[in-house]
Amino acid sequence: MEIKVVRNVLDVNKTLAGRNRDRFSQEKVFVLNLMSSPGSGKTTLLEKTLVQLAPDLKCAVIVGDVCTSNDADRLAVSGAPVVQVNTDQFGGDCHLAAHVIAAAADDIDLEDIDLLIVENIGNLVCPAEFDIGEDARAVVLSVTEGEDKPAKYPVMFRVCDAAILNKTDLLPYLDYDVGAAVGYMGQVHPEMPVFQLSAKTGEGIDPWIGWLKEQVTRKRSRG
Amino acid sequence: MEIKVVRNVLDVNKTLAGRNRDRFSQEKVFVLNLMSSPGSGKTTLLEKTLVQLAPDLKCAVIVGDVCTSNDADRLAVSGAPVVQVNTDQFGGDCHLAAHVIAAAADDIDLEDIDLLIVENIGNLVCPAEFDIGEDARAVVLSVTEGEDKPAKYPVMFRVCDAAILNKTDLLPYLDYDVGAAVGYMGQVHPEMPVFQLSAKTGEGIDPWIGWLKEQVTRKRSRG
Repeated sequence: MEIKVVRNVLDVNKTLAGRNRDRFSQEKVFVLNLMSSPGSGKTTLLEKTLVQLAPDLKCAVIVGDVCTSNDADRLAVSGAPVVQVNTDQFGGDCHLAAHVIAAAADDIDLEDIDLLIVENIGNLVCPAEFDIGEDARAVVLSVTEGEDKPAKYPVMFRVCDAAILNKTDLLPYLDYDVGAAVGYMGQVHPEMPVFQLSAKTGEGIDPWIGWLKEQVTRKRSRG
Repeated sequence: MEIKVVRNVLDVNKTLAGRNRDRFSQEKVFVLNLMSSPGSGKTTLLEKTLVQLAPDLKCAVIVGDVCTSNDADRLAVSGAPVVQVNTDQFGGDCHLAAHVIAAAADDIDLEDIDLLIVENIGNLVCPAEFDIGEDARAVVLSVTEGEDKPAKYPVMFRVCDAAILNKTDLLPYLDYDVGAAVGYMGQVHPEMPVFQLSAKTGEGIDPWIGWLKEQVTRKRSRG
């Protein structure tokens, strides 16, 4: 019974996500859905990413949290427009759903934007199941989280187009097997690129920035 | 509409959780619901906790994951009975619900057990909303996750009876403000004890073990 209820919610979401996708396409905005566990470093990665993209792309961010505007405050420093969504007004939702993104997008001048990045709620399960009308999905995994997360949360790693293995600056202090983590990702999603980097120090961030720019450019050349 | 649907699911869950609670009470089993983000170190903490409790309490574990039996394999080494629940059979659920715990408990000889520990799905949002018939709840937060998680995920920290601040062995390598993290917890849930420890090295684990034993003893003396 519970599963059927969830299925209905997902069907409604799918329809609304399709509307978002049409709207973003018309406005020529590329949308990235960035997901991860709580505390994997999404916001720090975004702070650095926004700075690096600024010369080439006009970016905006929708950032989701159950409570607080801490992340929006941090990201606003970049100068990019930032809209904070607090899901405690939506039943404390553990994910951003398509109707929430539609409402948040009303507060952004989409005509003026090349790339909209959605920083989803920190959660490795539910956000993977809710299409928000995005063009690409990326997951951030921290090296402090254990190697086997891709095997334990396979849906997330299966739906994503890229993965970031973050906090590599901590590797000298951990018993962490990078090869094992990348191996688990390869089992779940063989073609997915994995970017090993430290958002904190900036080491290894360039290939990730290059990949993201390429996605936006490729969509533009198609549209 | 979605919120109403979620409300119905929670009402059904509450009824089934009540049945679990009666059953555990009759069998004189204390039930701890252990929750956290993915990768905060719940399983390592449990490995150490089971060893320390073994001389005094007969323990069993129900461990939830979306996929894999990695955690059950690790915990089985302790000799305590371990039941693995994979929620991919329950719609890939992001939490353990009361009916799932009821089914898993059928595989445990409850008469022979003092303490049943439920290692919930790695998720700081949904598990906090699903009563499973437990006597106490604890949340594990890792010092690699950032100080503000209690403010961002207040429901979890509000429903818990104790918090563990784990991976303190990594503090020398992080810019982490322990006082700020404990302060956020105190704002959300002023009376909650916070145990700072490293499950990996065992440092600081004794007060946590003492607290847990005390909970079980207190319930016994009441019942």
